[in-house]
Amino acid sequence: MEENGKKPSTEAEAEERWQFGPNKAVEVAGGRSIRGTLNKIIACVEETGPRPMIPLGHGDPSVFPSFRTTSIAEDAIVEAVRSAKYNNYSLTNGVLTARLAIAEYLSKDLPYQLSPDDVFVTAGCAQAIEIVITALARPDANILLPRPGFPLYEARCTFNHLEMRHFDLIPEKGWEVDLDQVEKLADENTVAIVLINPNNPCGSVLKYQHMEEIAKTAKKLGIMVVTDEVYDHLTFGSNPFVPMGALGDIVPVLTLGSISKRWVVPGWRLGWIVTTDPKHILRKTKFVDSIRSYLDITTDPATFIQGAVPQIIKNTKDDFFNNIIHVLRDTAEICYNKIKDIKCITCPHKPEASMFVMVKLNISYLENISDDVDFCSKLAKEESVIVLPGSALDMKNWLRITFAAEPTSLVVGLERLESFCKRHEKVEQISP
Amino acid sequence: MEENGKKPSTEAEAEERWQFGPNKAVEVAGGRSIRGTLNKIIACVEETGPRPMIPLGHGDPSVFPSFRTTSIAEDAIVEAVRSAKYNNYSLTNGVLTARLAIAEYLSKDLPYQLSPDDVFVTAGCAQAIEIVITALARPDANILLPRPGFPLYEARCTFNHLEMRHFDLIPEKGWEVDLDQVEKLADENTVAIVLINPNNPCGSVLKYQHMEEIAKTAKKLGIMVVTDEVYDHLTFGSNPFVPMGALGDIVPVLTLGSISKRWVVPGWRLGWIVTTDPKHILRKTKFVDSIRSYLDITTDPATFIQGAVPQIIKNTKDDFFNNIIHVLRDTAEICYNKIKDIKCITCPHKPEASMFVMVKLNISYLENISDDVDFCSKLAKEESVIVLPGSALDMKNWLRITFAAEPTSLVVGLERLESFCKRHEKVEQISP
Repeated sequence: MEENGKKPSTEAEAEERWQFGPNKAVEVAGGRSIRGTLNKIIACVEETGPRPMIPLGHGDPSVFPSFRTTSIAEDAIVEAVRSAKYNNYSLTNGVLTARLAIAEYLSKDLPYQLSPDDVFVTAGCAQAIEIVITALARPDANILLPRPGFPLYEARCTFNHLEMRHFDLIPEKGWEVDLDQVEKLADENTVAIVLINPNNPCGSVLKYQHMEEIAKTAKKLGIMVVTDEVYDHLTFGSNPFVPMGALGDIVPVLTLGSISKRWVVPGWRLGWIVTTDPKHILRKTKFVDSIRSYLDITTDPATFIQGAVPQIIKNTKDDFFNNIIHVLRDTAEICYNKIKDIKCITCPHKPEASMFVMVKLNISYLENISDDVDFCSKLAKEESVIVLPGSALDMKNWLRITFAAEPTSLVVGLERLESFCKRHEKVEQISP
Repeated sequence: MEENGKKPSTEAEAEERWQFGPNKAVEVAGGRSIRGTLNKIIACVEETGPRPMIPLGHGDPSVFPSFRTTSIAEDAIVEAVRSAKYNNYSLTNGVLTARLAIAEYLSKDLPYQLSPDDVFVTAGCAQAIEIVITALARPDANILLPRPGFPLYEARCTFNHLEMRHFDLIPEKGWEVDLDQVEKLADENTVAIVLINPNNPCGSVLKYQHMEEIAKTAKKLGIMVVTDEVYDHLTFGSNPFVPMGALGDIVPVLTLGSISKRWVVPGWRLGWIVTTDPKHILRKTKFVDSIRSYLDITTDPATFIQGAVPQIIKNTKDDFFNNIIHVLRDTAEICYNKIKDIKCITCPHKPEASMFVMVKLNISYLENISDDVDFCSKLAKEESVIVLPGSALDMKNWLRITFAAEPTSLVVGLERLESFCKRHEKVEQISP
């Protein structure tokens, strides 16, 4: 007797018949995640190798000394825990003082004032994405997602059966949105367009004029803008960050964010969904009711971390933020310059924000490397350097590289990348 | 032009047509939650009333001085934050030291040793429920749920389209499982039976012999046991708590738990899913793979709270646990005795565990009270006392009362309940 295609190994097991098993739909959704892809690449690293692994695959520099969070944020947590005022379950939409502080914090960059009722505190931006995609996933609805983007959107849309339509970001135009394509993709069942700004994975920032065009297009199409601003304020080029919510009078905007990136505490799991929507269209159309309903059946961020948010926001000094920006500017520069030296990869747009850059891989320059996944797997095996294959972002033969790392580690990682590329270079390459 | 059934109020709005709106499926699922019901009852409280609200509707005594958590747990959090070792994203299944500590902690009550690979750390038991129900929700599958139970299971099954079949807990038999009914309800698509032990809402504990019968029945049916032991060790009657995992050699058991109740820190959002399954059937049938996949696309508990878990578990003194048990035994006694004095409610089984008791409401003794929801709404309005209507648990004309409250508050709350009942008593009641 067989079960699940495997032969039972003992007589006792042969007597047992179990009715449960894997859930393919969940595995398909999970297979789209960055975590899943990175775990496969990391598995290629030789465990007995003499050199430490250098992780340039995901956006978490918190382990590096140059990116240590401010002690002011730690103090706020300690005070909140010691107060014993936050051991209880929080309200569904979050602790009021946290919502007030987040509303004030974001209002500084907006032409209108947010209220705490606009804010829903979430367990990191990942949960914000989960909640928004779930609320949007009505039967027959579709959503416009950027390519390249952040695969948790794709994973959650797959899980929730929300049809995805991808529009391209144009590398030659500084990764601007292809708005002609957006108009062609949208139909009467389209409910939202997702933007990630500052951009992961491209390291770009939307220009204000282009944002206005996007807002007007969304309004014309009758869809909301979901703007993922988890990298807000992490810009170091000539383009300043402007929140999409500044255009909330043109089109209703749902802003997702967190303290994960700016304070370099992704493990604290504190994010938000905010209705940056001065005309209250998201409320009037009752979309917000669905967010509330889903919050009733989902977990919350730890109450005392919410309790610490007002102190974290109010007390953090500009020096801390400026220093992080300074380090990011330096590491982006190091990364960009090193990439210029490597023949088989090219960078179409110098990174000016976030923690990532997208580079194009020219496979024809390489021997015995079949594609980006093969490239990243062999790079991990031979050099213990982790880089995300573009395929994970539906960008075959591109790579996503994180420059948010300790400068010394980054240099070593990029040098290893360079020697890997040189070693695999085609010898009979015909010069142009 | 109308949108969403409402007339536009201005000309500008009339020009706008928005394609998004509420998601009914999410609202139906959310509507099954305790949070949703309690929020409606709480809304009945007179805001200008002179008396403070007494919350006997949900299991969160952390706000009361008698239930303050141990400073040892607070110390562990402070140390973890100050170390700056846990600001990063955690591994998908959780921080290794936390998984090790949880495995050791649970193994003490088991006839075999758990490994950290058996443990998945979750953002509270609520997220554990979300993950397990999601992984079980294959097309055409069905699950056996207890009535009364914990409505988050129903909400998540509704959301995930997992068919629910309810078996009864029998009040006259100390809320034992009706096993004949279980056998009749199960078919070839049944994947699991859910137990809550110690029991919310009944305040009962499963006897070992009955647990063996359940395990054998589940094995015969080819289904796993999902045991929600979030109230583990919170027993104060003659029945000791035995984890269902002790019978893991008979049937694969998935154990859900958290530090929320025993340490009285529900707001810390730290729970677990554990495969208490010495024969590794959950792994061999690849069910565990679906848990892993879903973890790849869901949020995590805060990393530093995970980092604090080993210290919390190792350093907490028995004195703390004993004191909490002592207070619960007292408050359960206060509650049980007061209920005996109130004519229109009866308690079929003296509470001996958890933080709740189920009592039957005899509507025929009352004037102008139509049912349990009406009872709870009017009680909230007139007395500022919150109690959960049994209807939220599919038990019409029952009430779920929490006795886990500061003794002085509990006494006042129950006295208000008594005077409410007396005030609404039928005057022409014929004595038996």
